[in-house]
Amino acid sequence: MDYQQILNDIEIEIQPLFGKGAVADYIPALAAVDPHVFAMSVTLFDGRCYSVGASEKRFSIQSISKVFTFTLALKYLGAELYKRVGREPSGNPFNSLVQLEYEQGIPRNPFINAGAIVITDTLMSHYKGDEKALGAILDFIRSIADDESIVIDDVVATSEMDHAFRNLALTNLMKSFGNIDNDAIRLVETYFNHCALEMNTQMLSRSMLYLANHGVDPITKKAYITKSQAKRINAVMLTCGHYDASGDFAFQVGLPGKSGVGGGIVAVIPQKMGIAVYSPALNAQGNSLIGTKALELFTTKTGLSIF
Amino acid sequence: MDYQQILNDIEIEIQPLFGKGAVADYIPALAAVDPHVFAMSVTLFDGRCYSVGASEKRFSIQSISKVFTFTLALKYLGAELYKRVGREPSGNPFNSLVQLEYEQGIPRNPFINAGAIVITDTLMSHYKGDEKALGAILDFIRSIADDESIVIDDVVATSEMDHAFRNLALTNLMKSFGNIDNDAIRLVETYFNHCALEMNTQMLSRSMLYLANHGVDPITKKAYITKSQAKRINAVMLTCGHYDASGDFAFQVGLPGKSGVGGGIVAVIPQKMGIAVYSPALNAQGNSLIGTKALELFTTKTGLSIF
Amino acid sequence: MDYQQILNDIEIEIQPLFGKGAVADYIPALAAVDPHVFAMSVTLFDGRCYSVGASEKRFSIQSISKVFTFTLALKYLGAELYKRVGREPSGNPFNSLVQLEYEQGIPRNPFINAGAIVITDTLMSHYKGDEKALGAILDFIRSIADDESIVIDDVVATSEMDHAFRNLALTNLMKSFGNIDNDAIRLVETYFNHCALEMNTQMLSRSMLYLANHGVDPITKKAYITKSQAKRINAVMLTCGHYDASGDFAFQVGLPGKSGVGGGIVAVIPQKMGIAVYSPALNAQGNSLIGTKALELFTTKTGLSIF
Amino acid sequence: MDYQQILNDIEIEIQPLFGKGAVADYIPALAAVDPHVFAMSVTLFDGRCYSVGASEKRFSIQSISKVFTFTLALKYLGAELYKRVGREPSGNPFNSLVQLEYEQGIPRNPFINAGAIVITDTLMSHYKGDEKALGAILDFIRSIADDESIVIDDVVATSEMDHAFRNLALTNLMKSFGNIDNDAIRLVETYFNHCALEMNTQMLSRSMLYLANHGVDPITKKAYITKSQAKRINAVMLTCGHYDASGDFAFQVGLPGKSGVGGGIVAVIPQKMGIAVYSPALNAQGNSLIGTKALELFTTKTGLSIF
Repeated sequence: MDYQQILNDIEIEIQPLFGKGAVADYIPALAAVDPHVFAMSVTLFDGRCYSVGASEKRFSIQSISKVFTFTLALKYLGAELYKRVGREPSGNPFNSLVQLEYEQGIPRNPFINAGAIVITDTLMSHYKGDEKALGAILDFIRSIADDESIVIDDVVATSEMDHAFRNLALTNLMKSFGNIDNDAIRLVETYFNHCALEMNTQMLSRSMLYLANHGVDPITKKAYITKSQAKRINAVMLTCGHYDASGDFAFQVGLPGKSGVGGGIVAVIPQKMGIAVYSPALNAQGNSLIGTKALELFTTKTGLSIF
Repeated sequence: MDYQQILNDIEIEIQPLFGKGAVADYIPALAAVDPHVFAMSVTLFDGRCYSVGASEKRFSIQSISKVFTFTLALKYLGAELYKRVGREPSGNPFNSLVQLEYEQGIPRNPFINAGAIVITDTLMSHYKGDEKALGAILDFIRSIADDESIVIDDVVATSEMDHAFRNLALTNLMKSFGNIDNDAIRLVETYFNHCALEMNTQMLSRSMLYLANHGVDPITKKAYITKSQAKRINAVMLTCGHYDASGDFAFQVGLPGKSGVGGGIVAVIPQKMGIAVYSPALNAQGNSLIGTKALELFTTKTGLSIF
Repeated sequence: MDYQQILNDIEIEIQPLFGKGAVADYIPALAAVDPHVFAMSVTLFDGRCYSVGASEKRFSIQSISKVFTFTLALKYLGAELYKRVGREPSGNPFNSLVQLEYEQGIPRNPFINAGAIVITDTLMSHYKGDEKALGAILDFIRSIADDESIVIDDVVATSEMDHAFRNLALTNLMKSFGNIDNDAIRLVETYFNHCALEMNTQMLSRSMLYLANHGVDPITKKAYITKSQAKRINAVMLTCGHYDASGDFAFQVGLPGKSGVGGGIVAVIPQKMGIAVYSPALNAQGNSLIGTKALELFTTKTGLSIF
Repeated sequence: MDYQQILNDIEIEIQPLFGKGAVADYIPALAAVDPHVFAMSVTLFDGRCYSVGASEKRFSIQSISKVFTFTLALKYLGAELYKRVGREPSGNPFNSLVQLEYEQGIPRNPFINAGAIVITDTLMSHYKGDEKALGAILDFIRSIADDESIVIDDVVATSEMDHAFRNLALTNLMKSFGNIDNDAIRLVETYFNHCALEMNTQMLSRSMLYLANHGVDPITKKAYITKSQAKRINAVMLTCGHYDASGDFAFQVGLPGKSGVGGGIVAVIPQKMGIAVYSPALNAQGNSLIGTKALELFTTKTGLSIF
């Protein structure tokens, strides 16, 4: 298949969508991005990478980082992890707090904020400290993206703390149920730090290869997690990767994926490739509007949906 | 692959699980079934069918019928249907009523009871009456299963009405929001009737072929729905097919599927085959305990998970 | 105290409020009332009745009837009644269904719809049928109001059934928990019938005397309920009498009372008098806007708040 | 009336209840109290105080302090206060968080934890700091109790912080809605400090006189709040003073009151007296089991219910 041609076609077809949706504006650093940007990259198992648009432009990966922390926690804790975080979709956001209360402080999955905070808590405990945990997360991401230049945007990380109250509420509620071991404020800071990583679509599509290839990087041959773990992370991405629009994403795109409020989305085509898109204007559910459309076009044009 | 051998192996491996779980006992007709039964069938595109266990024994398909009514409604209403029923997972069951209230009488997806009742309501309106709607549903199922002997178990259908109060509550609540057109009692009766269809695993695995093959029966070549519709029904089965254990099923089995409280589960391997299992003892989430395990073993042994 | 003068003053002071609020319009019979009407009556233990405004005009008492059915049920079932209905305020209306579900079909108090329906169910069972129960309710109200001319408005009762779906949802939900014995539709019809009673403020203020006087009509000396029961009905009126504005009513008026969506409110001044007001325009919480203000003015002018 | 005799009789009648209920045990300082203690005091407008039992024994007043902070906030902010906290009962505790979320961070009333924390926040802002706010609260309580010896139990205040996570969750959630101005941790510490005040039933019954007498201390003649404010605090105590057992307390006791998890309850008989009881074993709703019974006996024996 001529992937470059397909990406070129997609870039043309999404043009009319510029102007729709809205950039996340809860912190200045995110609100300041140019909404009129699009990038898409596809990386194959042999390392060939096809891109279109601003594929070298780095952006805040935000919740996409939850895929990486989930991977690390699963690697070190194994199935024990599921005592502290579930793997079911979470229903609509209005009941995030009551659901957490009803379910005794056990978040539904690793991709809602509460779940990702528990994951970060396990990493802080495993690595004995927030600095070391952040270092390990960064090392892992640099390894799977095969790029040592990836860093955290401190301005984003710091300014998130000014709007941290809901996350602190979730964290303290879980702590009241005994499901958080570390200090709430330190923990939420660490969580915001790994959400503030900056990457571009080339790096992100590269970083998905281990999930497309049973846990083993097909290029470096490094084995990160087991085949079963990789399959299961893909399953959680499919059912829970897009907040309350996960069903919609599965319905329209038909691929395991994870979106971030910064405008990025990663997706996996099992046994074939990693994909990443970027366009910062979000739809009503908080996922990249043009990014979602671009992925839908990609599966339609290639017939590579998993369904 | 030697599917017969794989099924034979699975039958041996699930033996230790007999005695676990519990048969649905809310109506006598379901409570009376023998829990010590297992059946599994796989039907390929060329019509070859491999089975193990009591694959000719008919059982109450219950919620599996929701796949068929969803298909029919989608066929006749198209995307209009999504104004009346969503396609998002529904979160945990405790909030089924509040979620329906919060979301103004629009059920989250066609596979929760409220959603399936709306679907049946659209069919009663489309076919102009409950008898005609039931007739059309039956015709459709006989066609996709290629078996004219399929009938409704009247005893089951009738005895369900003695426990219909929660479904009547859901129906009246939706009616208060204007999302139900037909008489509530007549509608719930019709819904219970199509849930009371009796089929065996051979018929059910055969009936999934149109979903595995882009909407077209690969044997009879009959086109039931579009490729896009088939892909999307599969996506909804994956994200919503097993109530509040949908995430778990995707996680462990990794296939689009739909379970029924009668002990059956259907699953689809896109572009390859239809599968059905039966074993009436249910796990805590109301899905066949042995059936789920058998499907997990099947994807592990064949490597045919979609992830 | 010169009650007539006080009522006259109140009538002047509420004039500027005409035009505020809105008449209930969910059924034509209620929507058609003249919003520019005000009436207020006070009846003392010696039978003297002071009135102002349209105190002979009959209106639909609606939820005020719940005080009377609660009294009858308490009289015949005693404390057993509290196994089927509570006496706690119900919180905000958005969670009426989830609360009922969480609390296993036991409504919070006799004055929310679900609770009043349970009360009516107990009366249908006690009197062996809907006709006999309605007859007994009517007899009781005619007795305490000392007026044989009180009747049900059939047009209102009938047209309520066109909007009964939410009440049918509540009833079926309670039936699924085993807390309703009679047929849901017949029960809701009976409930609507007693809500459709027509009375004026003279009758209503007269009808409150047994609650102001320890369960005994101070004029006829008929003993309806015990002193303890009367005190407790007053307590439930104070904490639960005005849906989600019960706290506000206690706060501003400081009297046990019960409002109806038809625009009436009854109130009790223990050991002193019965009061009724009528003005059909409702505030945001569904209570008579001018009626609430008139009662607040009455307690301010007389100093007769219970606090 | 011979109040001393009535109190003596009550002490005898409650004896069989010793051994029922359970002392609050979430912090060691509360868990260590002797459950076999009872005290009750009544203070009249002329200063006469009747007591029975351990009426000089000081205990942790806990939530009773919310009456005093509510009074202070109302005194300084007036009706503006109601923009930040409501005056409606809160329904059952399971939905405390979802209710707060649904109602945009505005707690239902000043007596649930969230509401009391908002009240403390207003006092920290008004008095410009936690130390000054605590000083003002202490001065006010010493004034209305006419006792300079009242102090905070630092051990209780400090150990509460080890279990503060749910309160921190509520506080951060309200902060995310903009309804908290001060630092969450500092605020919750201040809240715990005023809950850790130690008083005995003599002091507490004395301290209720301003609420029984229209805002003016009948002995010192000091005017603390307006007549209208006093009446309204009484109304909020009646409808919201006992968490989710407020309806029950109104039903059984029939007086405005406020309980604390330390085992104390205060009550007001308008125009007559202040009352306080103490017995640390709590009923299922978290209110003093024997204290509630003693108050019920008191209103039955004296006929002094407000209903």
